Amino acid sequence: MNSLDILWVVICCALVFLMQAGFLCLESGLTRTKNSINVAIKNLADFCLTTIVFWAVGYSLMFGTSQLGVWGRGLVFPDFSEISAQETTFFLFQVMFCGATVTIISGAVAERLQFGGYLIVALLVSGLVYPVAGHWAWSSLNGGEPGFLARYGFVDFAGSSVVHSVGGWSALALLIIVGPRLGRFDGSIMTAGSNLPIATLGVLLLFVGWLGFNGGSTLAMNEDVPSILVNTVIAGSAGALAAGGLGYAVNNNLNVTQFMNGTLGGLVAVTANCFAVTTPVAALIGIVGGMIVVFAEKLLERLELDDAVGAIPVHLAAGIWGTVATGLYGNLDILGTGLSRLEQVGIQLIGVFVYGAWAFGVSYVLFSLVDRVLPFRVSEEHELMGLNLSEHGIRQETEGVTPVTSNS
Amino acid sequence: MNSLDILWVVICCALVFLMQAGFLCLESGLTRTKNSINVAIKNLADFCLTTIVFWAVGYSLMFGTSQLGVWGRGLVFPDFSEISAQETTFFLFQVMFCGATVTIISGAVAERLQFGGYLIVALLVSGLVYPVAGHWAWSSLNGGEPGFLARYGFVDFAGSSVVHSVGGWSALALLIIVGPRLGRFDGSIMTAGSNLPIATLGVLLLFVGWLGFNGGSTLAMNEDVPSILVNTVIAGSAGALAAGGLGYAVNNNLNVTQFMNGTLGGLVAVTANCFAVTTPVAALIGIVGGMIVVFAEKLLERLELDDAVGAIPVHLAAGIWGTVATGLYGNLDILGTGLSRLEQVGIQLIGVFVYGAWAFGVSYVLFSLVDRVLPFRVSEEHELMGLNLSEHGIRQETEGVTPVTSNS
Amino acid sequence: MNSLDILWVVICCALVFLMQAGFLCLESGLTRTKNSINVAIKNLADFCLTTIVFWAVGYSLMFGTSQLGVWGRGLVFPDFSEISAQETTFFLFQVMFCGATVTIISGAVAERLQFGGYLIVALLVSGLVYPVAGHWAWSSLNGGEPGFLARYGFVDFAGSSVVHSVGGWSALALLIIVGPRLGRFDGSIMTAGSNLPIATLGVLLLFVGWLGFNGGSTLAMNEDVPSILVNTVIAGSAGALAAGGLGYAVNNNLNVTQFMNGTLGGLVAVTANCFAVTTPVAALIGIVGGMIVVFAEKLLERLELDDAVGAIPVHLAAGIWGTVATGLYGNLDILGTGLSRLEQVGIQLIGVFVYGAWAFGVSYVLFSLVDRVLPFRVSEEHELMGLNLSEHGIRQETEGVTPVTSNS
Repeated sequence: MNSLDILWVVICCALVFLMQAGFLCLESGLTRTKNSINVAIKNLADFCLTTIVFWAVGYSLMFGTSQLGVWGRGLVFPDFSEISAQETTFFLFQVMFCGATVTIISGAVAERLQFGGYLIVALLVSGLVYPVAGHWAWSSLNGGEPGFLARYGFVDFAGSSVVHSVGGWSALALLIIVGPRLGRFDGSIMTAGSNLPIATLGVLLLFVGWLGFNGGSTLAMNEDVPSILVNTVIAGSAGALAAGGLGYAVNNNLNVTQFMNGTLGGLVAVTANCFAVTTPVAALIGIVGGMIVVFAEKLLERLELDDAVGAIPVHLAAGIWGTVATGLYGNLDILGTGLSRLEQVGIQLIGVFVYGAWAFGVSYVLFSLVDRVLPFRVSEEHELMGLNLSEHGIRQETEGVTPVTSNS
Repeated sequence: MNSLDILWVVICCALVFLMQAGFLCLESGLTRTKNSINVAIKNLADFCLTTIVFWAVGYSLMFGTSQLGVWGRGLVFPDFSEISAQETTFFLFQVMFCGATVTIISGAVAERLQFGGYLIVALLVSGLVYPVAGHWAWSSLNGGEPGFLARYGFVDFAGSSVVHSVGGWSALALLIIVGPRLGRFDGSIMTAGSNLPIATLGVLLLFVGWLGFNGGSTLAMNEDVPSILVNTVIAGSAGALAAGGLGYAVNNNLNVTQFMNGTLGGLVAVTANCFAVTTPVAALIGIVGGMIVVFAEKLLERLELDDAVGAIPVHLAAGIWGTVATGLYGNLDILGTGLSRLEQVGIQLIGVFVYGAWAFGVSYVLFSLVDRVLPFRVSEEHELMGLNLSEHGIRQETEGVTPVTSNS
Repeated sequence: MNSLDILWVVICCALVFLMQAGFLCLESGLTRTKNSINVAIKNLADFCLTTIVFWAVGYSLMFGTSQLGVWGRGLVFPDFSEISAQETTFFLFQVMFCGATVTIISGAVAERLQFGGYLIVALLVSGLVYPVAGHWAWSSLNGGEPGFLARYGFVDFAGSSVVHSVGGWSALALLIIVGPRLGRFDGSIMTAGSNLPIATLGVLLLFVGWLGFNGGSTLAMNEDVPSILVNTVIAGSAGALAAGGLGYAVNNNLNVTQFMNGTLGGLVAVTANCFAVTTPVAALIGIVGGMIVVFAEKLLERLELDDAVGAIPVHLAAGIWGTVATGLYGNLDILGTGLSRLEQVGIQLIGVFVYGAWAFGVSYVLFSLVDRVLPFRVSEEHELMGLNLSEHGIRQETEGVTPVTSNS
């Protein structure tokens, strides 16, 4: 990296950081007023916690030199004032990615988790689940030995799998453990978002931040950046129109969350491959990504899995699609793995399964163990009361008087 | 463009993109709760739609090589992975400008339009009205032949006319076709914004984004950028104080929307000329811009034209002023057109009329035709019910209980 | 500064500008709905006013060449189109810092001040209090003679004292003059924030913007920037966890405002020294900064000083700590003052007292004089009615129906 590269990546850090604000708006706006403060503060607290944990051990685990990456270079609580500007920049960028991964979980399981329990989840994911997953695909980014998936030719440019699917798998594991919100599947409650304009603002902030997420993953200000950004914008836009259009065709209703989550689905899907596909293909990947979100939402509904904000359709389902699409459509010369098209698709599928097995499996085991000692779920009384009050002893000023009304 | 220039313009793309979030906050916050979701989602959907349309045909139309620009270089659904980083960056910047133009319309006509009808408006403006208008002033920016206004010496640096007035003219045409909101001019309703702090946040996000809007219009990181940014900040600030002060002098009331729209009026006014005026003159242009917004609001009120957020005063009225001010105060050497002061003012006035005739005229004709087939306006019942519910089948959690109270 | 440096500082201007949006969200969200519009519009209006005042006289006062800096270089309403790009960039960065200083005050004294009176405060601070304070530490940044504190070796890299403590001291002076909100200390009112998710969003926007605040204070894109940014992120994160943890240990309650203000306390504390400490020390400084906020809040409570948003604990208390920590932990070679550790701590303490004496003293005298002529405080009737209505004749749509409920 030269100075220009460092400048670019540093700016992308700020943009990815802005995504944390986007997640806050999205998740807080899509959940009920009685829980919206709890959801918001989780987005601040988990960023702060994961930053410290990733600095303490996660970064060492992910980018160390040993085969598993662990402790390779004395990177426990490393002092970046003594490390090169290049590596320090790289660390900062990775911190932001780790924060994004963890925050995905908080949205899915919102409105029913103890705050302390969620912090343990954030600790485990940022300290173990994510760094190991990241090591397998990205450990050579900073000059280390390539992880085993990378060695076999697995490509995930900016993290459709490493960030989004991993976050989605952990969320799914936790969701199964804690179960649906009270009344979610017996029709006794309808859950309207507390503030859908703010949720929509969240999508736009995420979209803006995604320019840094994908654009900064070059780790350089090179010739590829503008096309990566165009692919990102096109795929997100196409995803929104596809999901909105599909929703309209099926339900004859312009469902606002489908527009929102379709946008995000398109963005997640293009994340793995935006550096290696043409613009029309990026549009196609976005369209399919947006539509997959709609179908995955239906599937979760049918399975009675209660994802409060649609995080699993967006991050897990569209993330898998994006990972596979990299094999299907990525320019093989640019991917540079020396594999044939078929082989490339194969290793991408293997990556999907490996990340599913690791992130879902380890999360399920760890979260189950924690749940025995310290149950994640709040009491029924507290859930009805709302987590603003039960967890933080505070209420929104408008809260006392709002009936729950919606037919979304 | 060298790498540094590309980096700067790419960052400006992110900043202009952030303006979309600003428009969302502004427009959603200034409209009533029962419509605020509809307004918000329009800001996301229109960005996504205009991005795809501008990529599909708009860019080709605006920057093609033929006299009308149309289809000049095979730029229909162009593949930017095969195009130079410079042009790709330029395209991305132009996409963001097209999105801003269209979003101006949505605010003006809020609280009464069918969602589908609005998407047709977005389609027509991003696919025809805006690209043709832009071609006349800006087609040579990317190396093409200058359009006819540019050939005569018309100058509009960052779009007081091309973006803001064009958006304002289209909004005015649509406003006339759809008519005022129910009860708006018979005193039976008072319309309070649903969330004025969020609207104010929107103004600040727009202000921040405007640094990219004006600063990036250099298409280079050159010596002019810092002064352009200072002029932008000074003009916006001066506009706020002028509009707020004028409002106070006239009504003895610190009207919050006058502060907000005064800021934006100052920014719109300096957009055309920020590269070619001194800092004190930028302040003057901002002051007049802010005051014009106040007068234009009164005029619209008198004409019983119901602009829900003051978009026409801000973007059309202040945009005209900024375009003329470029002729009045722009440093002739920097403008570089070889015209005398009088000639420059003349061509700026001609530009104002040309854009009025084109953008208002074509919009009026096209929108009228659409309106016959697919009426834009929602039913009276739906308008009273609110567009959140009628268009999207959803309500804000707080919505059911809020009386409409305001004396603004 | 070369082009790369200018580019970096210009981007940092945008990031610091974004902090204004963060302050708006934080302050508006933490105050009651009946005042939230007033708080929001103050954040826009004070930025606009301070920008014009700082351009008119403040910049000249702060960075002039005379010993007091005053009028040194004809910088009254300077024309930046004639000044070097480097100095113009520097001015823009300083404008943003001045705006941040003033906005700190608005939060502390929210919910009881006349709008016009507050604008006079903004005028006095941006035109006199802040520029003189800044001159003493920073006048040599732009090539001028060092101010007297800088000559003695006082170091305040990005403004723990110059910006944050000065803003905090002025806020404290004003707070003492205007007194607490009605019922604040007799238990008759409880004050819940109108919108805590938005307040949390504000913290995240401030955090993102702080990358520019600290990172841009190098005034160059050099090798130090990445480490500065890492220190910033680590200190803010550590501050959040420390304050949240301390609050939990003491009250057995996960107090959301403690998380928020702890984050900000960590950021304020590292602001003076982020360029000269190791990463672990940055964490330590953040931890102490976060905890100091909690203690300072208790102290204010005991002294019956009613700071509506915790601005004084965050900006004044943590700012003092950051200034002292610079002496305690700053790498002496990097500080480059040639002082011993003890001497450095001494001059930092002297700086703390000088800024206290100046900013508190002058503010107290000036504000008291103004208060005699034009009382700052709104009438009791207006305070009960809420400042949205009494100052601006407007109400939030949700306002009429919200009971004040909270046990925070």
